[in-house]
Amino acid sequence: MKLLRVGAPGAERPAVLGPDGTGYDLSGRTRDIDGAFLSGLDPVELAAAVAAGELPVLELAGERVGAPVARPGKVVCVGLNYRDHAAEAGAAIPVEPVLFLKASNTVVGPQDEVLVPRGSTKTDYEVELAVVIGRTARYLQSEAEAAACIAGYTISNDVTERAFQFERGGQWDKGKCCETFNPLGPYLVTPDEVGDPQALELKLWVNGELRQDGSTAEMIFPVLAVLRYISQFMVLEPGDVVTTGTPAGVTIGRPGTPFLQPGDVMELAVTGLGRQRQVLGKA
Amino acid sequence: MKLLRVGAPGAERPAVLGPDGTGYDLSGRTRDIDGAFLSGLDPVELAAAVAAGELPVLELAGERVGAPVARPGKVVCVGLNYRDHAAEAGAAIPVEPVLFLKASNTVVGPQDEVLVPRGSTKTDYEVELAVVIGRTARYLQSEAEAAACIAGYTISNDVTERAFQFERGGQWDKGKCCETFNPLGPYLVTPDEVGDPQALELKLWVNGELRQDGSTAEMIFPVLAVLRYISQFMVLEPGDVVTTGTPAGVTIGRPGTPFLQPGDVMELAVTGLGRQRQVLGKA
Repeated sequence: MKLLRVGAPGAERPAVLGPDGTGYDLSGRTRDIDGAFLSGLDPVELAAAVAAGELPVLELAGERVGAPVARPGKVVCVGLNYRDHAAEAGAAIPVEPVLFLKASNTVVGPQDEVLVPRGSTKTDYEVELAVVIGRTARYLQSEAEAAACIAGYTISNDVTERAFQFERGGQWDKGKCCETFNPLGPYLVTPDEVGDPQALELKLWVNGELRQDGSTAEMIFPVLAVLRYISQFMVLEPGDVVTTGTPAGVTIGRPGTPFLQPGDVMELAVTGLGRQRQVLGKA
Repeated sequence: MKLLRVGAPGAERPAVLGPDGTGYDLSGRTRDIDGAFLSGLDPVELAAAVAAGELPVLELAGERVGAPVARPGKVVCVGLNYRDHAAEAGAAIPVEPVLFLKASNTVVGPQDEVLVPRGSTKTDYEVELAVVIGRTARYLQSEAEAAACIAGYTISNDVTERAFQFERGGQWDKGKCCETFNPLGPYLVTPDEVGDPQALELKLWVNGELRQDGSTAEMIFPVLAVLRYISQFMVLEPGDVVTTGTPAGVTIGRPGTPFLQPGDVMELAVTGLGRQRQVLGKA
């Protein structure tokens, strides 16, 4: 089951894709794809409603696609969760997950413009597997409990300004929270359709050149372990997003450090989760 | 003008205090004290409405007080913003503001129970002056522009687990985002009533013992400079909260490091902003 939100920013309409790619309007069932909707979501029942023709067809051609979840309560990120990325970043392999937050208002649609911040010299990309939370996660005791908290998966581009992240003092947040810095989508794909979240390929291209080419099999801390871990420190709520780290290939690890410039084009793909494409602009 | 929210968690009613402390119900004007309401707030007009008897009286005695703003889009915090606190934390004086985020779902009312997290050995307090944002702040060019973005001020207790913050790898977030870790309130006090935000005393007591006793005059980066600075890295929106750092006196800087235990009582006061009181419980 693939859920999505289509329409102008702030006025997206909830939709579901049928097995043949036809869009169906979910507006009669929910105002938005948000925590309240996701906490009650039954993919089997929804698929049956699609199959039974209970939902009106929604023409998707030409529509803007928004992030597949209304503004999250929070976006929790795992840093340095792939060995090769930790190495290229010059960081030690973490002994437990590194966590940070992105501001929720960084979230934009998967095809929306990404803005190079004013004063930026080191804007960089990070393709990641993102988890959308469907049930409250608090002091989870097992990976089975963690699995039950997942509403679905999507692609996250954890856009980052490396000079703001590392050279301006203190924590990483200055480089992680800039406007438009979190393209999310295109779909929220339910777990039954994703299968094993540790067997997904992640790819990212800049101007057509393949820059990141990894697999979630290479994560240091797998998805379920990450969710259980986070829940020992904070309460995850329905509609929250957890991004699980990026593999090697970001600009800081590349010869000549060719950071992103206005006009550049990023494309991202994760197995089964569709594709993103963003053009860089200027803030 | 003092705004507040009273009632059960998640069902608070918006209210305003008259000059004699009488409560008036704002439900006829707004569903909640949130970003949309604050962006249109005119304290002069509202005071006139109170004086003209246009608002129904709301009995406040016995009511729970919630945070004075509905769940913020984000809580942005300034770390190490008092010289004496940086010294007690063993940190260098920052050359520019240190920023981090607290998860928005840490926000609770000013008298609500604060939970010592499971596995915690170093739960600590931090009294802070908090700013509630009333207008979008993006690349502010002057302190006058920053002043225009302030809806009001309130008290924040930036509760922190020091072992989670410093001893679990990576960023500070693990120690800053635990459940109930951000009592906020009791009032949102509008800038006209607060006067100079750099002339406020901050105090915090544990079990009646004065532990923190500082003044916002001692901030390294004053409020308006902080807002202008943050807006170069991220977009602040109406309803967001910015907390501006804590003076010396937290537990890590005290002989014997008497960290908080279940049953302890924290009390906080900031000039003109009222008082908070929390009893510690167990998560």
